[in-house]
Amino acid sequence: MSDSIKKPSWKERLHEIIYEADTKEGKLFDVILLIAILASILLVMLESVKSFDNAHHSLLNIGEWIITILFSIEYILRVISIKKPSKYIFSFYGIIDFLSTVPMYLSLFFIGSQGLVALRALRLLRVFRILKLARYIGASNKLMLALKASRAKIAVFLFFVVIVCIILGTIMYMIEGEENGFTNIPVSIYWAIVTLTTVGFGDIAPQTPLGQLIASAIMILGYSIIAIPTGIVSSEMTKTDVDTNTQSCPSCLKETHKTNATFCYNCGSILN
Amino acid sequence: MSDSIKKPSWKERLHEIIYEADTKEGKLFDVILLIAILASILLVMLESVKSFDNAHHSLLNIGEWIITILFSIEYILRVISIKKPSKYIFSFYGIIDFLSTVPMYLSLFFIGSQGLVALRALRLLRVFRILKLARYIGASNKLMLALKASRAKIAVFLFFVVIVCIILGTIMYMIEGEENGFTNIPVSIYWAIVTLTTVGFGDIAPQTPLGQLIASAIMILGYSIIAIPTGIVSSEMTKTDVDTNTQSCPSCLKETHKTNATFCYNCGSILN
Amino acid sequence: MSDSIKKPSWKERLHEIIYEADTKEGKLFDVILLIAILASILLVMLESVKSFDNAHHSLLNIGEWIITILFSIEYILRVISIKKPSKYIFSFYGIIDFLSTVPMYLSLFFIGSQGLVALRALRLLRVFRILKLARYIGASNKLMLALKASRAKIAVFLFFVVIVCIILGTIMYMIEGEENGFTNIPVSIYWAIVTLTTVGFGDIAPQTPLGQLIASAIMILGYSIIAIPTGIVSSEMTKTDVDTNTQSCPSCLKETHKTNATFCYNCGSILN
Amino acid sequence: MSDSIKKPSWKERLHEIIYEADTKEGKLFDVILLIAILASILLVMLESVKSFDNAHHSLLNIGEWIITILFSIEYILRVISIKKPSKYIFSFYGIIDFLSTVPMYLSLFFIGSQGLVALRALRLLRVFRILKLARYIGASNKLMLALKASRAKIAVFLFFVVIVCIILGTIMYMIEGEENGFTNIPVSIYWAIVTLTTVGFGDIAPQTPLGQLIASAIMILGYSIIAIPTGIVSSEMTKTDVDTNTQSCPSCLKETHKTNATFCYNCGSILN
Repeated sequence: MSDSIKKPSWKERLHEIIYEADTKEGKLFDVILLIAILASILLVMLESVKSFDNAHHSLLNIGEWIITILFSIEYILRVISIKKPSKYIFSFYGIIDFLSTVPMYLSLFFIGSQGLVALRALRLLRVFRILKLARYIGASNKLMLALKASRAKIAVFLFFVVIVCIILGTIMYMIEGEENGFTNIPVSIYWAIVTLTTVGFGDIAPQTPLGQLIASAIMILGYSIIAIPTGIVSSEMTKTDVDTNTQSCPSCLKETHKTNATFCYNCGSILN
Repeated sequence: MSDSIKKPSWKERLHEIIYEADTKEGKLFDVILLIAILASILLVMLESVKSFDNAHHSLLNIGEWIITILFSIEYILRVISIKKPSKYIFSFYGIIDFLSTVPMYLSLFFIGSQGLVALRALRLLRVFRILKLARYIGASNKLMLALKASRAKIAVFLFFVVIVCIILGTIMYMIEGEENGFTNIPVSIYWAIVTLTTVGFGDIAPQTPLGQLIASAIMILGYSIIAIPTGIVSSEMTKTDVDTNTQSCPSCLKETHKTNATFCYNCGSILN
Repeated sequence: MSDSIKKPSWKERLHEIIYEADTKEGKLFDVILLIAILASILLVMLESVKSFDNAHHSLLNIGEWIITILFSIEYILRVISIKKPSKYIFSFYGIIDFLSTVPMYLSLFFIGSQGLVALRALRLLRVFRILKLARYIGASNKLMLALKASRAKIAVFLFFVVIVCIILGTIMYMIEGEENGFTNIPVSIYWAIVTLTTVGFGDIAPQTPLGQLIASAIMILGYSIIAIPTGIVSSEMTKTDVDTNTQSCPSCLKETHKTNATFCYNCGSILN
Repeated sequence: MSDSIKKPSWKERLHEIIYEADTKEGKLFDVILLIAILASILLVMLESVKSFDNAHHSLLNIGEWIITILFSIEYILRVISIKKPSKYIFSFYGIIDFLSTVPMYLSLFFIGSQGLVALRALRLLRVFRILKLARYIGASNKLMLALKASRAKIAVFLFFVVIVCIILGTIMYMIEGEENGFTNIPVSIYWAIVTLTTVGFGDIAPQTPLGQLIASAIMILGYSIIAIPTGIVSSEMTKTDVDTNTQSCPSCLKETHKTNATFCYNCGSILN
């Protein structure tokens, strides 16, 4: 804001366009970037479809090069428009940007490095920055807050699920054995996870009556305990959403007051 | 109500019967219409069952024509009984009604236009209008309110799910490869969605140990993050549902009174 | 209770034992009955296992006759120990008891009526009566209350799910067609239900890219909207559980006061 | 703490290291133990993978013996460092520790006792003790509290699910019959559980139109009633979690204060 008083340098202007989404140009840049990322993902997808690749190989190749050059220019602009380039280069997005651009150049000399382009999907996370001004980030922050608060409980739950799957998987291996598809303990644990999470591929399925009985128990367990993470997040969200507001006490700076509080619960001063 | 003082014209009466469900005739009309819609859907379903169609083709054809003529009459009555016909014709229901009636006439000249009759299922949404007087609409409105309020959060969640599926699908394509059914990236992403949402068709299933390990991680992820939309809607509904409003007691300023409260539950003064 | 003053007749004593679970004899009777019901279900199950039935047919037959005679005696006792026999005979349990006893007698003259014994499983619902004194019924009542309160919303939700499945099933039939297992519209709707509810048998699975895209959308939809019934019941239970207590106002008899209410929200009288 | 005044005996020191995790040595011991347990589980898993076992049998055998000797030493140290050895030996962990160590010795004389090593997975539960100091145990306790409170309701729910599966399984057996994979009633009940819990292996799937109709109903039922355990746990957790206690303000008698509140949020008086 204070930049608007004295005329900003071209670096400052570039920084505003590339790194911020508050100005019209900044938003436009981000939208174009998002479209380019989506196009680049689509290109890689189509390339993997053999019949399509055989028919339109050169077209896909040209598209891939255009995208790569655009991404390279964007990368260079990002580096030069920031005061401390290392801050960007070694940031999460900086590394993602580099890794999703460089494989195409390497493919001039080596073959098979296109696999890395999957990283481009990670660039899609930038979409949240574009939506920065909208309520989406607010929603995302609330989600994050609720998830962070329930981190410990969910870790305990997941740990419990993994132990249960190891034990039940081993038991099923002993009951069903190799002849029914439970070829070894890791595969049986994999099957236990498939069953407990109610995915149920069906590539492996118990054949003996005892195995089916235990499988039934696993399924009912999985069907019931899904209530636990859900309950954790629900109660956390209800708390975050309903109980408290974001004002801080003018005297002691304590936050998370009840929405209908008139006095600070910590120091007793009147809240505004 | 004020219409009952001076005698309503036949157009007004027709409008009351067709567009409203408050009078006995209006309710009867809507119930008959609903039965006709259900019959029309059943007809199309049976038509698609080859063995049944071969045995009773002419019967199905006659039924189809009866339904079509009834729907045509209904459509014309709707158009003439409204003051501004264009208001109905270009409304959601107007377009649905037209598209679900016209294909049968076209089939006199062309073949294969019966496919459009699937639109008839959309006409079933009218059932909510018939139930207008009952508490169902209230329930539906509350649902809509809660869903609208959680729209932004659910959009963020779905966006996250899609990005995760793109990344994990691509990784699984690189690990499992074509020989294990992961023929290309789009198919692998499809598989990732099938797995993360705990559907698990089993038409494609990982065969390599590493693939099964990642699949296990996807399943546990899917099993855990289903807690997020559930938590969002739960907390939203608890908020919407809690029988309290935001007015404050004129005497003691206490808030969160029950919506049907006449007196403050804290000090007993009369609420406005 | 007043029966204990004057000596009860044998009919009254029998009634106490059979229909109530407050006395020691009544509890014993119910526990024995429950064991007999479980044994009868186990017998029918084992009978359906061909290999077991071939080996132990006469044993199963004898067990079946013992159970049948026990159930017959119980039925007769129930009829004679009640003042108005018709009240029992035409009640839910009366019909279940009759239907689960009679097939064995019919099987003397006809073959194949054993199928009806499945009704015996319904007799298991009696277990809740045995647990009457415990906290289980309280829990069950709270559940019922929450479910009753959310009946309308869940009806709207299920109706929505069915309409969505009809529409999506029809679309999938048009896209995938008979050659990919979507042989007719009813089967396609069945597949849509299998997919939306995240069951995913995999006996039918989309093969075309467009079909897989729509299937992905159905799965993500199903994965998200499961939040709706869950949210409904969660918020209802939170309300039932937390917000209100069961005392009624001494003046106006209004119930469901906030747990921290001092004054009746309806008439302003002081609550005790 | 008081032990640090007079010098503790070596038994007391050993007890501190082995049974407690408050000192640096105690923590180190527990972390090393956890790694050993994980290694022992990994060994058993790899042993069950035939191709790996054939290639590295002697290596696995040596590893197994090292683990067994380490576990034996740990077991002996646990027994001698406690005042009442029987208290440990017959505790849950004591039995688990014994059973997960002894099979290897037995295998010198007998073959096939390795199966018992699955018990080692249970030893992983010790991880919670290592994390004792962290917030994980607090989270785990809260989870336990909420689950304990909802025990009765969940028991009623599970009982209901089992009865429904018995009834629906039997009905499906009668409708589909042996020729469609529903070979007997237990298998059909197994299928009903697979379907109701939305697992859906697909090894058995209904083929008749009526069977598919009932299957659809089961699926929609299972999709809806998952809301019940979720609702139970959610409401219980919201109750447990809500940061409020039951004390009332000495001035205004307002309740539902935040647990860390010093002043009443309504009138500002000091709470006790």
